[in-house]
Amino acid sequence: MSDAVISLKIRLQLGDDIAIGPGKADLLEGIQRSGSISGAARELGMSYRRAWLLVETMNRCFREPLVISLVGGRHGGGARLSDTGEQVLRHFRHIETRALAEISVDMAAIQALLHT
Amino acid sequence: MSDAVISLKIRLQLGDDIAIGPGKADLLEGIQRSGSISGAARELGMSYRRAWLLVETMNRCFREPLVISLVGGRHGGGARLSDTGEQVLRHFRHIETRALAEISVDMAAIQALLHT
Repeated sequence: MSDAVISLKIRLQLGDDIAIGPGKADLLEGIQRSGSISGAARELGMSYRRAWLLVETMNRCFREPLVISLVGGRHGGGARLSDTGEQVLRHFRHIETRALAEISVDMAAIQALLHT
Repeated sequence: MSDAVISLKIRLQLGDDIAIGPGKADLLEGIQRSGSISGAARELGMSYRRAWLLVETMNRCFREPLVISLVGGRHGGGARLSDTGEQVLRHFRHIETRALAEISVDMAAIQALLHT
């Protein structure tokens, strides 16, 4: 049988909105990499509209917008992360990595009971 | 605006199967409480068939079955957790609690940037 894989999903919710979670962090990374919401959407295989809505939600949840649209309009001018956006992304990835390392040690007791 | 809520989902996957995760842990607790798969299914608002399939998957993933059906047939005789089942459930809940406490501290930096 194949190897066991531990996965972990962390979310921060504000009211009904997910302020930041794995999908939104992926989107922020995509924007960082591609320099636009449309580029990130393409990379992640989601519609521009969906990516834009996710960005809207994040920007609404935080005191400062995480994503800044550059001059040139919605599809045209590209987008980049604000300082707050960079900070939130960095913290979030760091927390995910640490939490996963932490639980991986603890999960050994359960994994030992799995079929192998 | 409402308060921020941190949530965390941990899963242990074996090949294509989820050996244990939040939903399966809830089901184990339901069986522990109600003494049957059908009672647990009712508590959790899922069909008996779905609960039974989740139990089948868990039992297949681990070396010892987590849930033992008692004499009297599928709907009749009830079910209980095996020692391995009790152990897996206890470890899993413990890991969830610890991981959530751990990330809650780290998330403070992100929460400080939220709208309040």
